[in-house]
Amino acid sequence: MAHIKVPAGLPGIIGPMSAYPETAKPMNELAQNLLSRESSTLSKADRETIASYVSFLNDCQFCSESHGAVADYHLKQTGFSRQLWKDIESAPIHERLKSLLRIAAKVQKAARSVTAQDVEAAIRLGATEHDIHDTVLIAAAFCMFNRYVDGLGTFAPPRGDSSYVQMGQMLAENGYIGAI
Amino acid sequence: MAHIKVPAGLPGIIGPMSAYPETAKPMNELAQNLLSRESSTLSKADRETIASYVSFLNDCQFCSESHGAVADYHLKQTGFSRQLWKDIESAPIHERLKSLLRIAAKVQKAARSVTAQDVEAAIRLGATEHDIHDTVLIAAAFCMFNRYVDGLGTFAPPRGDSSYVQMGQMLAENGYIGAI
Repeated sequence: MAHIKVPAGLPGIIGPMSAYPETAKPMNELAQNLLSRESSTLSKADRETIASYVSFLNDCQFCSESHGAVADYHLKQTGFSRQLWKDIESAPIHERLKSLLRIAAKVQKAARSVTAQDVEAAIRLGATEHDIHDTVLIAAAFCMFNRYVDGLGTFAPPRGDSSYVQMGQMLAENGYIGAI
Repeated sequence: MAHIKVPAGLPGIIGPMSAYPETAKPMNELAQNLLSRESSTLSKADRETIASYVSFLNDCQFCSESHGAVADYHLKQTGFSRQLWKDIESAPIHERLKSLLRIAAKVQKAARSVTAQDVEAAIRLGATEHDIHDTVLIAAAFCMFNRYVDGLGTFAPPRGDSSYVQMGQMLAENGYIGAI
């Protein structure tokens, strides 16, 4: 049971967002821009992968599972995200995304540790400055979403639960505005 | 120099927010709701104190100094925030705010460590469920703002610089919508 009253039966961030819509609105607008807007250089699957990887590093079951499911749905590859979390270096992804995931991991742990060299490496591999911006802000934003979910003690369905597959499809198809 | 191009001379979050207004807008709306809306139970000074304390724990110079200056301005007590960061237990504040700062510190470090007992203690001291919600979300949101500022390698004026006093007054008087 969550530490504060939220509507019964709603897992993860859905409970507090439903109970506190004034703050849910800007948070969903931020998620929409970062994860679901069209971008020619960083795919929605790439951005959801950054989100789910950071959530996994933060040990946030609800966010890693749900955003991992969004990435899996975009890629039409069940189990992709779960495999990637184990080791990004051996994951079947472009070197550019690996370089961005390394930056995201630094932001999650100690943001000042991101170096000019980290950024140059990603840009050499084809990332734009906007991609760097979005990578840092996605990582930062999930350090917020994860703490909101876990600091309030919300419940999460078990890892691998089919409800995440449904959430993944819904978020991938409809985006975040009005998701809650 | 920041890791990506931002307008010259703008410190901290002001640079990337100016260069990327689409994401700045929801972030400022979130800050406005959490820090600057009217609330009968948790003063603006209390909420800015939670924001600056979490930023201090995250070692984010720009955010701790600027939001510390907002709290100081609301309280008309120069140096209040700097003193509080050293030790919340001996700070000249209500026990209720101390109980909320303890929750905020847990959210910053490991959000799942917040217990029902932590929340009950704050409620016994007069906090509402909305105050608990806001405390957790302010702490979570500053884990985002701090990482956005530091992950992009923005510059910050030295601690104690007079520019923070000006920022503190401006934000206290005008709020966050349109701040950038």
